[in-house]
Amino acid sequence: MTAQRVLGVDPGTIVCGYGIIDVAGSRYTYVTSGVIRPVRNAPMPDRLCTVFRGIASLIEEYRPSVLAVEEAFYGDNPKTAIKLGQARGVILVQGVLAGMQVSEFSPRFIKQAVVGVGSATKEQIQYMVARILKLPSPPQPTDAADALATALCFAVQPHIKLADDRPLTRAQRQMKALGIL
Amino acid sequence: MTAQRVLGVDPGTIVCGYGIIDVAGSRYTYVTSGVIRPVRNAPMPDRLCTVFRGIASLIEEYRPSVLAVEEAFYGDNPKTAIKLGQARGVILVQGVLAGMQVSEFSPRFIKQAVVGVGSATKEQIQYMVARILKLPSPPQPTDAADALATALCFAVQPHIKLADDRPLTRAQRQMKALGIL
Repeated sequence: MTAQRVLGVDPGTIVCGYGIIDVAGSRYTYVTSGVIRPVRNAPMPDRLCTVFRGIASLIEEYRPSVLAVEEAFYGDNPKTAIKLGQARGVILVQGVLAGMQVSEFSPRFIKQAVVGVGSATKEQIQYMVARILKLPSPPQPTDAADALATALCFAVQPHIKLADDRPLTRAQRQMKALGIL
Repeated sequence: MTAQRVLGVDPGTIVCGYGIIDVAGSRYTYVTSGVIRPVRNAPMPDRLCTVFRGIASLIEEYRPSVLAVEEAFYGDNPKTAIKLGQARGVILVQGVLAGMQVSEFSPRFIKQAVVGVGSATKEQIQYMVARILKLPSPPQPTDAADALATALCFAVQPHIKLADDRPLTRAQRQMKALGIL
């Protein structure tokens, strides 16, 4: 079975986590993980450029075919949302430029896919990522673990049904009641 | 006096306006303007890529030395803010990649700089942009006019004092009272 190489990214302009795994059926192999840390007090355009260049180098070096990005959490602060959006923009665009398959997953969906609980803690994610990828210790920092979890989410999601625990639609409830779903 | 070429951008993933002007002291010359329109129903990463490539072509063709971008308006919808942020990210990063000076201005500041009123309408902006740049008719569509206004804002802002009509700080009020400001 041909392996797919998946680059998972947890976007951010302070810390941007990345994790790369190889996926062959239900066999997942750890490749690398880490974080991109732009200079903290640098102007935003420069920080975005550091993220852009960092992701570009990873793609060039590891040649992943899939980009899996954590979907934005729609908090209640539009100012934070703009910043997070800016980081996401420079990451997503790289996937298209490199001809990769681009997938986005909500934080809740990722947690459910990897830990089994949509409200999993950072520590639970680190623990499960280490277990699934047979790592000797939990990946550090948590941003790298989150990125690996995003990549794993892409790998396991074809096997998940309704795993994002959004409320069922009326049609889905009916199907469930009829035993179709 | 050496002219500076300024690329003004009004970010968006539905319509992204651009406008280029040459600035030599207080002489402003229109170069070009228009809009980038990603395919409307295309996935967001592809739309971001269209904006990215569009801005890249403009920079390659016209070689501006300054990128002036309209600052995000912090509305009350984080979902919209994320989308706008994504578009801004791919634009801002180009300025840094091309070694340009990158400046951001709030919509209010731009309106005040170009029209003289922070709450100016789209039509007022179009009218003033046409007047300042001696265009035979108002630039179309309004997104292109907004982008030209952003470029003009960069050009005129060194001559503006406290034009963004934010409330004065205590120190500024004192200076004003003393006639220093």
